[in-house]
Amino acid sequence: MREMEWSKQEREIARRAFKAAYSGECMAIAENVRKMASEINDPIDLWQLHDYLTDKRKETDEKYDYRYRVLLFVFARLMSEGWVQQEDLAGISDAKLQEIRRTAEFMSGR
Amino acid sequence: MREMEWSKQEREIARRAFKAAYSGECMAIAENVRKMASEINDPIDLWQLHDYLTDKRKETDEKYDYRYRVLLFVFARLMSEGWVQQEDLAGISDAKLQEIRRTAEFMSGR
Repeated sequence: MREMEWSKQEREIARRAFKAAYSGECMAIAENVRKMASEINDPIDLWQLHDYLTDKRKETDEKYDYRYRVLLFVFARLMSEGWVQQEDLAGISDAKLQEIRRTAEFMSGR
Repeated sequence: MREMEWSKQEREIARRAFKAAYSGECMAIAENVRKMASEINDPIDLWQLHDYLTDKRKETDEKYDYRYRVLLFVFARLMSEGWVQQEDLAGISDAKLQEIRRTAEFMSGR
């Protein structure tokens, strides 16, 4: 994946889309937590919920990497997983969007 | 705190009281988790819940130590925190009960 320059305006769009995706994914995790918490019947269930959160924290910490040299790849992954839509990135260059979309499609196995 | 021999019958009582205390404390943690989970509004809240569970898991792992040479001390702590009542230990020797109660009172600052 090529590196590309990000204009000031593109950075703002990227930052906003990134933040919204992170928030959306965390709120989906929170929803799972509420469901799991409502079904705790013994200590094992409680620590399984903890394990789930430990895994998700590690996963999101690694995934949400806001360095410009990896950002196209990050957005592609977020798009393939449904946390970012193409509309969220409206305003960034066609070259970047195309790269993101192509990589996302590859990741989704299409 | 003196070491004492535990008879087979005492071990059964101790095991049962220990297990009930652990289960009771875990269910109280689960209740806090449900409350915290219901109040998650942003990612920070989610990871605070994870931190809370990490702390509680470490704390309970350390506290619930079922080795006979520390068990009087463990029961004293559980009694001072309200997870074990004197009635739960009915059937173990007076000497042990007295030691547990005295240490529990000391821990509670009475």
